[in-house]
This record gives sequence, structure tokens and C-alpha cells, in this order.
Amino acid sequence: MARPLAVVCVSGGMDSAVTAASAAADGQDLAFLHANYGQRTEAKELACFHALAGHYEARTRLVVDFPLFAAIGGSSLTDRGIPVREGEPEEGRIPTSYVPFRNAHLLAAATSWAEVIGARAIYVGAVWEDSSGYPDCRPEFYAAFEAAIRAGTRPETSIRIETPVIRLTKAGIVRRGRDLGVPFEKTWSCYQAEDRACGACESCRLRLRGFAEAGLPDPLPYALSAPA
Amino acid sequence: MARPLAVVCVSGGMDSAVTAASAAADGQDLAFLHANYGQRTEAKELACFHALAGHYEARTRLVVDFPLFAAIGGSSLTDRGIPVREGEPEEGRIPTSYVPFRNAHLLAAATSWAEVIGARAIYVGAVWEDSSGYPDCRPEFYAAFEAAIRAGTRPETSIRIETPVIRLTKAGIVRRGRDLGVPFEKTWSCYQAEDRACGACESCRLRLRGFAEAGLPDPLPYALSAPA
Repeated sequence: MARPLAVVCVSGGMDSAVTAASAAADGQDLAFLHANYGQRTEAKELACFHALAGHYEARTRLVVDFPLFAAIGGSSLTDRGIPVREGEPEEGRIPTSYVPFRNAHLLAAATSWAEVIGARAIYVGAVWEDSSGYPDCRPEFYAAFEAAIRAGTRPETSIRIETPVIRLTKAGIVRRGRDLGVPFEKTWSCYQAEDRACGACESCRLRLRGFAEAGLPDPLPYALSAPA
Repeated sequence: MARPLAVVCVSGGMDSAVTAASAAADGQDLAFLHANYGQRTEAKELACFHALAGHYEARTRLVVDFPLFAAIGGSSLTDRGIPVREGEPEEGRIPTSYVPFRNAHLLAAATSWAEVIGARAIYVGAVWEDSSGYPDCRPEFYAAFEAAIRAGTRPETSIRIETPVIRLTKAGIVRRGRDLGVPFEKTWSCYQAEDRACGACESCRLRLRGFAEAGLPDPLPYALSAPA
């Protein structure tokens, strides 16, 4: 019998890599989806996406451009006038790296594609409990968007959203990835550099802390080798 | 006191023109948003968008490209391999012109832009009662998407979705537009032609029937002058 098909949103970061591994472990055939949205490290993330798609033998791949974000600005990831903040995320504040409602665009793309190719699940590597505090990573957002999918697609379409790492800590994601054999050397998390990870931005800090707490070495090269 | 700012999604069709007129009548300052999604009549719709933005003295304009739809196909509007169907929409069937989950992309773009520019409403010209039966035009879809906006944007962000024509018949939309002084000659509805409207596609049929039932002349040039 043919395996069910799932769209997996793969940025190329460790969270999406572990999410892809979870989808594969769930017995899904994988349709790999990647978004270029004008982020600083677009080329590096795309290379990781393709490396992961190869590793997980994706049945099909789609790379979609979101030119909107560079046009509207408002985030340090897409607006060169806003510096990337270094250090740990501040408790209770939305970081400057928040790209306004970005994950809704990603889910909309995943849904449209899923409806055309007949996929019945969308896997997305959002992290809430131990992450940057982006509002579009909240579990409530995914529940609400799933309801919007039910209301806004063909009656015969049935698409669920799976967020297998949303409640995990970063250390928990590293451990889950280790157990599933995720090739962490094919992932990228740094917000601002593409040759060696800076080790200083919020995303590098979260990643390095996750590996340190899990007691595993991070295979990526860093300009700064350990979190402060 | 400054007027509140609203993002208005303006395709260039009569429904979106009447929606823009409604937003203006509500006392909103208008931020005009248009989507190019690879539809056959993209150039004509864009010209109407700019003409309407001028007419309504939009404070700002944004044109966004959605390259996804041409890439994934699945609709007669974006996929040259699927012919545009002529005649009235068939009861109880999703038409081949349905672009999978398109309005979610539009709302996501409107929300991201609204969050950056500080708009507190999104106006969209979806029509449900007397239209083509696209699932992403259902009132339930807009209610669900509004909940997703609440869950997925900054805590201080508050954006509501207004669908002023969703329950109107096409004739009701024509009459509302007449009452609000909408320049119908600056709108375009035909799915397949850009010089003279075909008069035969589903969208032309709905439009022509609306003008006929309202007892008003349609100012556009048609290849076929009256609905069968």
C-alpha cells in the first residue's frame, strides 16, 4: 500500500530537520517545502534544505519565494536597517527577528500545495516552550489555522497540522534528533552568517544551549565556540 | 484626529471595488493591496487596481507576487493546461477556476502588512451567497482566519476582517456600488480576456447577470453582449 503523503516545511534549521525525521518515522512519504523570504542567510538555508531533502529521500520538493517580507520590512531578518540582536532572547518580549505573521504564509503555501498533490498532513517545526517567543509559533495559532484550513478548502480536502517539536526544549529537540539519526551537520540556525555560525545571535545561543544541555557536540563551525 | 487605517484587498474586480468604497464610507484611510498570482488577466487587473487606488486616494499601495500558484497549478486561472469553463457555475461543485486556498495567502499578506503599518482592519471583497462557490469565500473561513490572526500576531496587534459584500447578491453589489459612486468602468471581472471581456466565462456571467438584475448598464466592452 502507498504511504500517506505529508508536506514538511523545512527551513534548514535543526527544528525542521527533526520535524522531517519525525514525519519519516511516522511512515509518511515526504513533500519538502522551503520558503525564501529575503532572510539574510537564504542561500545557506536553501542548501541545507536540499541536503536534507536528499537525506530523507523526499518524493518531491518545492521552493517558494515570498517577496513580500523584503518589501514591507519590520524584521531584523529581512530588513537590513534593523540589526540582528545578539544574546539570549528577552523574557516576555517579541524579538526584533520576528517576521510579521510569517508562518501563516508558510502554512498557506503548504496547504495549497497539499491540496493539489493530495497530502493529508503538514509538518512544521515550530517551537514554543523554549524558543524566541514568536507569536506565530504558539500552539493556539496552529489550532486556529487548522480550523481555517477546514473552512477554506474543498469539502473533500482533509489536512491536519503536525507540530512534533512544539512543546520540546531545545535540548529535547537535540536528543530527539540524535535518537532519530538526524544529520545535524546538514542544518543551519545562525541568523546572520553563512560560512561559520556567529555563535552570538539569539538563534545560535538557543542552539548552542540545546546541544550543551543535551551533552552532545554541535557539528557546525562557529566563530565563537561556546555560549557566554 | 487621524482616520484609522485599513488594508483593502483590491483585485480590480467589481466586488473589491465596492469593498474599497465601503471602507472609504466607513471613514477608513486606505492601504491598497493587490496580488499577482499568475492569473491569465494579471496585467488588466493590475491596471484596474492602480486606477481604483487613484480614484480612492489610497494612502499607500502594495503589489505582491505569489509565484507559488503558477508553480503548483491546479486551477484554470493559473494553469494553461486547464481550460477556463464557460457558462454559469454549476450548483454544488467547486469550479475549476478555484485557486487552492488563495485567499489565505491574500489574508496572510494583508495581515503582515497591517501589522507593520499599524492598520487595524482588513477589507476583503469575498462573495459567498451568489458567487462561484469557492470554499475560501465562505464566511466561516474569515471567522476562522481572524482567530488565527489573533493567535499568531503580536499581543498588542488587533486586526479584524471586514467582508462587506459577502452576503450580497451580485445585483445587490451593483446597487451598493451605484449608491457609493463606484467607477465600474475601472474594474475588470473576465477570467480570460484583457481587451474586451469574453461575456462567457463564469465570472462574466455572474457580473452580467448582476447588472441585468439591478437594471443598470455595465460600462465594460464585451465580445458577447448579453448573457444567454
